[in-house]
Amino acid sequence: MRQIIYADNAATTKLDNEAFEAMIPWLTEEYANPSQPYFFSKKPKMAIKKARETIAECIGAEPEQIFFTSGGTESDNWAIKCYGCSPGDVRVIATSAIEHHAVLNACKNLDKIHSVVYLPVDKNGLVSPIELEKVFDWRDKPICTCMTFFSSVMFANNEIGTIQPIKELAEAAHNKGACFHTDAVQAIGHIPINVKELGVDLLSASAHKFNGPKGVGFLYDSGYHIYPHNDGGSQEDGRRAGTENVAGIVGMAVALKKNCDSLEKNQHHLALLENHLLTRLSLSGLDFVRNGAENHLPGLLSLSFNKCDGEMLLHRLDLMGICVSTGAACDTKRTQVSHVLKAIGLEDRYARGTIRISLGKDNTIEDCDAIVDGLVKILKGN
Amino acid sequence: MRQIIYADNAATTKLDNEAFEAMIPWLTEEYANPSQPYFFSKKPKMAIKKARETIAECIGAEPEQIFFTSGGTESDNWAIKCYGCSPGDVRVIATSAIEHHAVLNACKNLDKIHSVVYLPVDKNGLVSPIELEKVFDWRDKPICTCMTFFSSVMFANNEIGTIQPIKELAEAAHNKGACFHTDAVQAIGHIPINVKELGVDLLSASAHKFNGPKGVGFLYDSGYHIYPHNDGGSQEDGRRAGTENVAGIVGMAVALKKNCDSLEKNQHHLALLENHLLTRLSLSGLDFVRNGAENHLPGLLSLSFNKCDGEMLLHRLDLMGICVSTGAACDTKRTQVSHVLKAIGLEDRYARGTIRISLGKDNTIEDCDAIVDGLVKILKGN
Repeated sequence: MRQIIYADNAATTKLDNEAFEAMIPWLTEEYANPSQPYFFSKKPKMAIKKARETIAECIGAEPEQIFFTSGGTESDNWAIKCYGCSPGDVRVIATSAIEHHAVLNACKNLDKIHSVVYLPVDKNGLVSPIELEKVFDWRDKPICTCMTFFSSVMFANNEIGTIQPIKELAEAAHNKGACFHTDAVQAIGHIPINVKELGVDLLSASAHKFNGPKGVGFLYDSGYHIYPHNDGGSQEDGRRAGTENVAGIVGMAVALKKNCDSLEKNQHHLALLENHLLTRLSLSGLDFVRNGAENHLPGLLSLSFNKCDGEMLLHRLDLMGICVSTGAACDTKRTQVSHVLKAIGLEDRYARGTIRISLGKDNTIEDCDAIVDGLVKILKGN
Repeated sequence: MRQIIYADNAATTKLDNEAFEAMIPWLTEEYANPSQPYFFSKKPKMAIKKARETIAECIGAEPEQIFFTSGGTESDNWAIKCYGCSPGDVRVIATSAIEHHAVLNACKNLDKIHSVVYLPVDKNGLVSPIELEKVFDWRDKPICTCMTFFSSVMFANNEIGTIQPIKELAEAAHNKGACFHTDAVQAIGHIPINVKELGVDLLSASAHKFNGPKGVGFLYDSGYHIYPHNDGGSQEDGRRAGTENVAGIVGMAVALKKNCDSLEKNQHHLALLENHLLTRLSLSGLDFVRNGAENHLPGLLSLSFNKCDGEMLLHRLDLMGICVSTGAACDTKRTQVSHVLKAIGLEDRYARGTIRISLGKDNTIEDCDAIVDGLVKILKGN
């Protein structure tokens, strides 16, 4: 394998080695179905219990509020599609214009029959709690007795890294009796999150974004807000059926705990790398802007180069063995300017030249130097 | 670890060692997100492509008809909940009384607003194609212009092993313009299945039932019958969003291919074990009946002992290190007679004393002897 510099940690992260080691027994000798009542099933059952406790502890929740899923997309779809009471209910849903497609497309699916409001963001990508609250103003003049109010705003944006004022947004939603969901896929394991302090009702997470395995995630539900998305057996307290992915669940818990235990250290390390990269890039004389708010995900840099093609940049960096992204991981099949860059009102001449560098805890100063050198070489030809 | 005799292969199977080995690179060094456009993502992308081709070949499908999911329960829920056209459509759904809870509970969820018919079965657990066809007779007198017709009958029953006349059932459904789905979770990898020859429109599968890993499965869709259950990114041709569980998908393909390649050998081996076990049990003088049809899953024995408690049997066998089930894996929290045994009309004095022994390719004649010896010891006290 050729040597690479991986700077696309917002797309996915390397599975932590301890997490991998912790998964092995459940992929080999300890293969019992955790739902069975015999002795052989006791170990996987206990492993799931322990993983649930660990994860709950990492986000300030109770174990019975954690429901394992197949990843962030399922968690988002579950939260959004399965809120409400009975068929025929009218739902008012508020979300933002810069959500991940898992949220946006789930909402789009609902907006044929329900009322969905896509809140704008400011130039830094921030959603206003006041605007969120306004969406539910017709609470005072309901069009029917069976209206439900739901909101979903992502914790941190996957393209530009902006961290939303989650506590204020949750409060704004609650002021009008709306349920508050946050897609925390990009944030969890990277910044401190305490669901109780923040007052969120539902929270989505995906293991592979915090050095856990792919194909597993969880949904935090503060208290029976939603009905099942996958009906069937009695797993997950009867709320998410299907034989548990024991290895994945165990790996996820180990990875999250490890990331949370070294949160400050990682944040500090990433801030250093980020500053180094930005300082060197500024000194290079290249014409670029950095997108996103002051309060952003550690190590995530959305950089827009004037009159340049982001895809070209990505491919030229790739030839140098450097992995970055042009936008969201799921957006790479589309060549147009991303919905996030449009929403923050970035000038087209910059927007088209955007790359996302997302550094992880394993990246080094040398990696940042190589990225800057690469960009300078491509853009200045030296 | 104490030595066990695992005879609960219908609940889950041991992950095949080659499948496990094939998963390792995707859990360690090859961690790239397969959706990204750089070189590092090429290998996982190709691995998924190859897995899709392998799986398609195993069931006589085209690769583009295979959609990866998190398991059988998701596949079932997707197929059942996401068929139909627009909100407001009226659906007529036919299913059987002995389906897995993933199908039954998904249907139950729909029967508040749609018309769901639960077809009875005969004493061997067989569904009648004629009865299935009758459900859709009101096609000739539709109550509205937007009625859709859907049917779901499992390939082989998880409790009693009965294999349904799938080809005839699919034909019956098609005669009336109904879509035909089959939950093949218990059958695939154990008996020959060719989706084209059978004419099924949708088929659900789960890897951990054929020596693949837990937390991954697939749905075969012959041609855009359903809309997405998990909206979001462009994975799986835009029809099932979420970063792919690369390791799980690769492991599933290796396990399925290996099982399909040795299908006849395994069937022969299991028939021998089954005969040996049944012969010895009959000679023991115990009063029992065997449930299910002549055409049943290899190695699956649903045995009902007269005036006995199935749970007691399970626990006493467990103390001897023998793992069997009382019913479906998901039914173990309930103590009542299973819906399957009720549907076949088994007398209560037998039904309560039912255990499911599901032998796998790794079981031996000695295992069968130990199971018979155990049962005789428990039931005859010697």
